[in-house]
Amino acid sequence: MTLHAQSHDDAPNVLRLRRLGIDTYQEPVIYMAADCPVCRSEGWEAQARIAVTLPERSIIATLNVITGALLAPDEASLSESAWVALGARDGDRVVLSHPKPLVSLSDVRAKLYGRELDQASFERVIGDIATGRYSAIELTAFVAACAGGRLSLQETIALTRAMIGVGDRLAWPAPVVADKHSVGGLPGNRTTMIVVPIIAASGLVMPKTSSRGITSPAGTADAMETLAPVALDLPAMQRVVDREGGCIVWGGAVRLSPADDVIIRIERPLDIDSEGQLVASVLSKKAAAGATHVVIDVPIGPSAKIRTPESAESLGAVLTVVGQAVGLTLDVVHGDGAQPIGRGIGPALEARDVLSVLRGEAGAPADLRERALVLSGRLLELAGAVTSGQGHAAAASVLDDGRAWRKFQAICEAQGGMHEPPRARYTHTLVARSGGTLIDIDNRRLARVAKLAGAPKSAAAGLELHVRLGDTLEPDSPLITVHAQSPGELQYSLSYAGENLDLFRIENSGSLRPIP
Amino acid sequence: MTLHAQSHDDAPNVLRLRRLGIDTYQEPVIYMAADCPVCRSEGWEAQARIAVTLPERSIIATLNVITGALLAPDEASLSESAWVALGARDGDRVVLSHPKPLVSLSDVRAKLYGRELDQASFERVIGDIATGRYSAIELTAFVAACAGGRLSLQETIALTRAMIGVGDRLAWPAPVVADKHSVGGLPGNRTTMIVVPIIAASGLVMPKTSSRGITSPAGTADAMETLAPVALDLPAMQRVVDREGGCIVWGGAVRLSPADDVIIRIERPLDIDSEGQLVASVLSKKAAAGATHVVIDVPIGPSAKIRTPESAESLGAVLTVVGQAVGLTLDVVHGDGAQPIGRGIGPALEARDVLSVLRGEAGAPADLRERALVLSGRLLELAGAVTSGQGHAAAASVLDDGRAWRKFQAICEAQGGMHEPPRARYTHTLVARSGGTLIDIDNRRLARVAKLAGAPKSAAAGLELHVRLGDTLEPDSPLITVHAQSPGELQYSLSYAGENLDLFRIENSGSLRPIP
Repeated sequence: MTLHAQSHDDAPNVLRLRRLGIDTYQEPVIYMAADCPVCRSEGWEAQARIAVTLPERSIIATLNVITGALLAPDEASLSESAWVALGARDGDRVVLSHPKPLVSLSDVRAKLYGRELDQASFERVIGDIATGRYSAIELTAFVAACAGGRLSLQETIALTRAMIGVGDRLAWPAPVVADKHSVGGLPGNRTTMIVVPIIAASGLVMPKTSSRGITSPAGTADAMETLAPVALDLPAMQRVVDREGGCIVWGGAVRLSPADDVIIRIERPLDIDSEGQLVASVLSKKAAAGATHVVIDVPIGPSAKIRTPESAESLGAVLTVVGQAVGLTLDVVHGDGAQPIGRGIGPALEARDVLSVLRGEAGAPADLRERALVLSGRLLELAGAVTSGQGHAAAASVLDDGRAWRKFQAICEAQGGMHEPPRARYTHTLVARSGGTLIDIDNRRLARVAKLAGAPKSAAAGLELHVRLGDTLEPDSPLITVHAQSPGELQYSLSYAGENLDLFRIENSGSLRPIP
Repeated sequence: MTLHAQSHDDAPNVLRLRRLGIDTYQEPVIYMAADCPVCRSEGWEAQARIAVTLPERSIIATLNVITGALLAPDEASLSESAWVALGARDGDRVVLSHPKPLVSLSDVRAKLYGRELDQASFERVIGDIATGRYSAIELTAFVAACAGGRLSLQETIALTRAMIGVGDRLAWPAPVVADKHSVGGLPGNRTTMIVVPIIAASGLVMPKTSSRGITSPAGTADAMETLAPVALDLPAMQRVVDREGGCIVWGGAVRLSPADDVIIRIERPLDIDSEGQLVASVLSKKAAAGATHVVIDVPIGPSAKIRTPESAESLGAVLTVVGQAVGLTLDVVHGDGAQPIGRGIGPALEARDVLSVLRGEAGAPADLRERALVLSGRLLELAGAVTSGQGHAAAASVLDDGRAWRKFQAICEAQGGMHEPPRARYTHTLVARSGGTLIDIDNRRLARVAKLAGAPKSAAAGLELHVRLGDTLEPDSPLITVHAQSPGELQYSLSYAGENLDLFRIENSGSLRPIP
């Protein structure tokens, strides 16, 4: 008996891939038959972590065991994300082995035990995360180890640098590259689509990448997509910016801070906000996008992400210091986050608000216009394009004389052509059950109404908000109109609203009129 | 249009269950077709958490979306553990809905943010965990929030009480109920099978529940099962204890501390030891088993779970205080954890060591005998059966005069009949490449060799250890003999040993002889 009879060259651990079409979202899963000889000889059971290797690439996947007849003993299957990550095709033969233990998990344990991590540790962890080597459990352990203020300023800087290091980094032929970011949680906050054309029309470069809504009813990329293509690759994005000085594209098509894309999917379902991770997430994306001057919009409100002026101050201080450390000049702008901005919630409805502000229409939402002017003004001042105190007026002039609107249309054309946003087939308006002053809107549950109506997947879906805080309402005053593309989704959204009559609070009275 | 048209009574969200046979281990998963109308109208995507309801029971499962042809639009499937948890059968019609948000997740977040949790918080969290309401991500967040010494003594007591509260609690008609626990990590530590007959033969009650090996090559339940049935339900266990005063059964068949069973499966792959959670885990099981007097065996060694005398002291102090709080009288016994105990590693091989000690055979492993006598003696003293200082002698007398051996046979008979442990079909002995003094054994990698040979699933598999620390070896001295039931598993185990020649360290020389 010799020890080397069973080496990888003899490849006993080879199975043929067959596509079953199982979407597990992010977690790569490998499926093997319970009577598969590889599984048995390796002693693998469900939940084992397994290295799956093709000649060109290797991933680590979690084992699910097929006890039924879906797979033959010499077959394996992968979850949809694992097919993509491995670049595998139906019929490919994969080699299966025990993965090398991840050294970076010792760093995660050290952080859980309260030790401070250094730059090299964060690079190991983030490197493994970016290449998909962490299971959901391991990712959660890292996120939890950093949550609750457990990242020092030095660690936040190290994490940010590590996150920048694992992705692509864009470079622009301009000394000043403007950018903005809104710390989330406020529905309808679509200022980006107004700020970019104002800044670009003012002669600055602003190559904006935006996200799609994951837990929200719309991201900027979703709203913009109702007007023009947004899924541009890097060369296409560069052509638009060369021609127009700005763009508004979906960031998912360019690989900026890929570790953040992975981490964020764990943080959101847990709803844990780590100041350090938030800062690293935002700033790694900005630095990777090639920005030099960045305005950060921080809405403050009881159902926004940042709830008090004190947390906004604290966040602003960390953003500024970490920004400096990674070469970004930052300005943090606090704003009112007590109620949604604009009228629409949902991709097309938010796009309509934007168009109405850009076109200077009489009924354009004043709050959206004003917030966009404040942010644009601060960005113009930060970038040195106007003297301090002149930003707001300069931005207003570019908006009011039509330059911003022409620039927006030119950007849409450069991105592939402008079109009208869709309109929903079904609508229903909910009204106040009695009169009084509107004293509270629950933004989170309002967002939920829009999501149940189909937003952001259904671009036309969402809701129109007919009231603002402080409005005096009559009985039967319209509160919101729900928009949906199917009767089922409309019903679903209305049913949720009916169970949450207190999402509007009207002083001295009830709120929504229950529907008989 | 009325709001109440789509209520749950109309049950639009009903799908027919079809068994696909997918084992995801612990995490309950529901599979739905991508074109399933329920999925679409609810806006559910992969990874959504969904309440799955039958008239009698409801569980929360994670959604995986089937993009292939495995399911029709009106069908759903469940992972194997979810079928069991829901008590569902093929063809059953389930109602699907958005689960109510878990209030206890706010407690988890509070703990992550560094706040101290009270009894009510732990009860909420543990109640939801015990009923399977946490996803793997949520479980990990809780485990991580408590890791690294973040549980205060008060919190550890509260957690222990909460864990006792959610399971069954056994009661025995005796004022003193003896128990023992070994803090894991040391292969071959099968003292339980010797301590129980000594204690029972001494007239005390010792209804011992043990675990199976999850990450180790054998648990006491695995070793005992090679000699007698261990999967006894509560009435059967009670009959054995009534008749013989003691039993050695598998704890999985009785529902003691069910939350611990869930938590432990997340802690192990992460390899994070939380002192507080370890204490709560051990003591909740002891209290639930009805114990009053408990000896805790803490082996200390570089590759044991507890690595230094200081951590053993600290753990012992917490165990004692928390034990008192939940009504347990405890004694903590430190022991040498530098090398495996006994000769065998693997269920049947460890059972043979036990038999040889009980029968008083000449070649019986002296370390296993001595450790069992120390623990039995301390337990006899703690329970007041003998005066202080007389325990070891009393235990030795019960072992040496054959009473313990007769009691063990009687217990096996009462549990369903004693049989001989199986022998492996294939063995191979690895030898030292050169002479010298054996100065180190890596217990963890040695355990891995035994596991790759098939232990504990293959009861006869594992290894025999032919050497002890401090032995003087000649070149070609036998070190270990690997036992396996298939040539593949034998090869696999030997191949791993061949890549880890340093798992034995021999002074002034190499270690294992590489196999040509």
